[in-house]
Amino acid sequence: MDIRILLVLELGTFIRGLETTATYDPKTREFILNTPTLTATKWWPGGLAKTATHAAVMAQLWTQNKCYGPHLFILQVRSLEDHTPLPGITLGDIGDKFGYNSIDNGSMQLNNVRIPRDQMLMRHSKVTLDGTYIPPKNPRLAYGAMTLYRCQILIICSGYLARASTIAVRYSAIRRQTETKPGYEPKVLDYVTQQNKLFPHIAGAYALACTGRYMIDFGKRATERLKLEDLSVLAEVRQISDFIGYIEMLNNTYINEQNSGHIYNNWLASCTYEGENTVMYLQSARYLLRCVKNPKSAPLGVSAVLHNPPGKHWDVKNMQDLEKTNTVLEAYRARAYKKVAIADKYLRELQSGGDTSYDAWNKSGIKLVDCAKAFTHYFVIKTFFNMIEKSRLGQSCHLQLHRLSILLALHGIDQNTGDFMLDNFIDFEQIKLIRVKILELFSEIRPVAVCLVDAFDIPDQTLLSVLGRYDGDVYNKLFEWAKEAPLNKTQVHSSYDKYLRNLLTSKL
Amino acid sequence: MDIRILLVLELGTFIRGLETTATYDPKTREFILNTPTLTATKWWPGGLAKTATHAAVMAQLWTQNKCYGPHLFILQVRSLEDHTPLPGITLGDIGDKFGYNSIDNGSMQLNNVRIPRDQMLMRHSKVTLDGTYIPPKNPRLAYGAMTLYRCQILIICSGYLARASTIAVRYSAIRRQTETKPGYEPKVLDYVTQQNKLFPHIAGAYALACTGRYMIDFGKRATERLKLEDLSVLAEVRQISDFIGYIEMLNNTYINEQNSGHIYNNWLASCTYEGENTVMYLQSARYLLRCVKNPKSAPLGVSAVLHNPPGKHWDVKNMQDLEKTNTVLEAYRARAYKKVAIADKYLRELQSGGDTSYDAWNKSGIKLVDCAKAFTHYFVIKTFFNMIEKSRLGQSCHLQLHRLSILLALHGIDQNTGDFMLDNFIDFEQIKLIRVKILELFSEIRPVAVCLVDAFDIPDQTLLSVLGRYDGDVYNKLFEWAKEAPLNKTQVHSSYDKYLRNLLTSKL
Repeated sequence: MDIRILLVLELGTFIRGLETTATYDPKTREFILNTPTLTATKWWPGGLAKTATHAAVMAQLWTQNKCYGPHLFILQVRSLEDHTPLPGITLGDIGDKFGYNSIDNGSMQLNNVRIPRDQMLMRHSKVTLDGTYIPPKNPRLAYGAMTLYRCQILIICSGYLARASTIAVRYSAIRRQTETKPGYEPKVLDYVTQQNKLFPHIAGAYALACTGRYMIDFGKRATERLKLEDLSVLAEVRQISDFIGYIEMLNNTYINEQNSGHIYNNWLASCTYEGENTVMYLQSARYLLRCVKNPKSAPLGVSAVLHNPPGKHWDVKNMQDLEKTNTVLEAYRARAYKKVAIADKYLRELQSGGDTSYDAWNKSGIKLVDCAKAFTHYFVIKTFFNMIEKSRLGQSCHLQLHRLSILLALHGIDQNTGDFMLDNFIDFEQIKLIRVKILELFSEIRPVAVCLVDAFDIPDQTLLSVLGRYDGDVYNKLFEWAKEAPLNKTQVHSSYDKYLRNLLTSKL
Repeated sequence: MDIRILLVLELGTFIRGLETTATYDPKTREFILNTPTLTATKWWPGGLAKTATHAAVMAQLWTQNKCYGPHLFILQVRSLEDHTPLPGITLGDIGDKFGYNSIDNGSMQLNNVRIPRDQMLMRHSKVTLDGTYIPPKNPRLAYGAMTLYRCQILIICSGYLARASTIAVRYSAIRRQTETKPGYEPKVLDYVTQQNKLFPHIAGAYALACTGRYMIDFGKRATERLKLEDLSVLAEVRQISDFIGYIEMLNNTYINEQNSGHIYNNWLASCTYEGENTVMYLQSARYLLRCVKNPKSAPLGVSAVLHNPPGKHWDVKNMQDLEKTNTVLEAYRARAYKKVAIADKYLRELQSGGDTSYDAWNKSGIKLVDCAKAFTHYFVIKTFFNMIEKSRLGQSCHLQLHRLSILLALHGIDQNTGDFMLDNFIDFEQIKLIRVKILELFSEIRPVAVCLVDAFDIPDQTLLSVLGRYDGDVYNKLFEWAKEAPLNKTQVHSSYDKYLRNLLTSKL
């Protein structure tokens, strides 16, 4: 059975406002499902249009003339005999999308569809035979699945970034550009400006892979505890997964090369699936501010960031200091600490100035997103450093990954100098040192850059890029690939007879 | 006749390295055109694959056993009778692209194709009947056309940005999100975080339109002077158009909404056509440094930036000061001045430290791109301010555009605080003022935001977006639009009989 979670046409972050109804009928012991308005139409679920036979449907539960809010129901949507939609169920495809067009994302409207009582998912809340509603221990339990999936988004993004970097780095190692001395054109990858575009992304792919694996382990352990109805872990998992889902990459220009268009288009979806990224950042910020208010409720990791004021000045005096992961990480911690404090102070000032809590929150929006981003950056850098330190790697492999992690961290500072210079924590001389160090790292990474992307081990069949081929035989194969294009099946295209001949021979 | 300029498969910025040959044969008074290698294949020209009957071909000119470098030739590529490629000419389509797939970008290989002597474009350089070569007055004259087209890229980008903002602003004024008080979900456009994403882009579209128009006027006047063989203007046009072609938008996250995918894909091309943007920035930087060295050679506008050191500190004490265009512009001028000085100093230090001029240039790459970007930002803001000031607008229209221009400028500072805080030119207190001012501008722009995009006057037929419809009837029309999707032509898709039935009924 292929079961998909359903979203609805107009549904945003206001899940309590969804309009689909499931009304219990104690006479027949059935739920009656209805889509009362156009905007209640289910919209987007992957596979719903043409493939799925069953779906998990979120609907407002009505019983004994009272509404108990959104609950999940299992619904058979198509016949198992001939695959036609069942009576009362209207299914459709939602049309052309920016990416993922091989998935039949669907729409669904329900008209008095009856299902047996036991097709309500009743682990947490229940409706008895006579229609009595028994509430769940904790209404937030329903979000468990979405949370675990959020952790996986990281791995997915890391994969896209790995594919894009592979294509870009390999092609840059083939392609030559601009004669710099008579008869010599350097490889594009030898240009510092190109290294600046690509190397931080290689590092980013490794960092996201590490952070993703960490989060999935964390999420799985948490899910186990959830099954044991240990609810304490839920808030923490949820919030940390929010932090992480929408990272770095959003702030960076994404690598675009010919044939990586589909990577971009599919990756883009990750900014919105499981929650639009600004909304996620705001949720994370809300959690961070709660931790500021109640230091005891904050989990260890968050508390360490928010409750130890950073020193006055960054402890970096020379290039060697920039090799120390603790020192580099401290810059990110200080930034997160300050950004959270700024947002918190601003919000409280607005509230005590008489703004409603909504107005104050809205006016603080940019600062809140900023503080969540700063915390996310800190978390990714920290996890990346930790994973490298704890992994049992050979010395040379360890060295390469260490370099990548330092590059990612220093590049992040260089891209956000204003943030890190807050209260003069980092000064201009240190920024200059960072820029020199970055150039040094570029020249160290350059000789192994192709190896670093080869290590992602993405086969050509998956990469689907002529420019990013493993064997580097770009130009011959690009030519061969183009020969297969539909327009090359004929010498003279049918448009000639249809339009062009008349145009060319007319005496305009 | 449809004539297109041709690029080649491997050609980068090393135009002198192109391999196609045109060898003069004085016996028949013909040129013989050849593609000696695979990498000499012409690649990309729009319309070449299936449409064009004639092409302008760049080739190395050989006569009297000597090579005189790249020259342009007119070549008939297809029969005017039946549109088949002429003997010796192999034409093909280059295959699927990220955007512009309705254009048949083509490839071409030439094998001993003979054309009459007078099909060489001989305005500037000539080959006489006996094969004597007469050089042009100025070898750079050939770039004139590309330069004018670069000016137009601005207008094209402005158009894409206008379309994207129109869709995003209109839909944000329809879509509601998150219940902020019981029963009330605000419009997405009421959120400051959304305003922060969209309003600077509205301003950007207006700014690019102004700058584009200014540049095209400038370019046209320059072209007239070129026809009169007044060469002095060439360097200036070329460099200023380089500055402008690759702006702002590259640094900003581009607005992405459903149905604006095609806008993104087509816009992206503007980062590379007529020259890859990093290469353009580097060319601009080279020009700026030359102006530093020879103040007298610099045109008035550039000289004003580079030869008047800015004051020690920005002259902003309160919110009112942030309304003054001269004051705001001075921040951009100071940044450009400092960035150019930094790049110049760094480059000279490396050279006097013994680096070859190529190595020094390459190592300075990031700083050089930075200084060109800073100058470009300055130029756009200045032109935008000037155009608004000089236009004969009604008072209220003037006020709205003034607000947009101030927003664009202050937002740019806020996005690059580290740059503007160089040498403490702008301090933290001023940054805080800017952020307060930006929020004030958001609330002033919010009531007219939809009008500001409606004023782009893009008809629905061009916008091609259900979400961005002028009448705002988004949900009904989205539903109707989706009904037309190919997958909705049948209730049960053919894949069911082919694959799914067996899968569903098998006893796995």
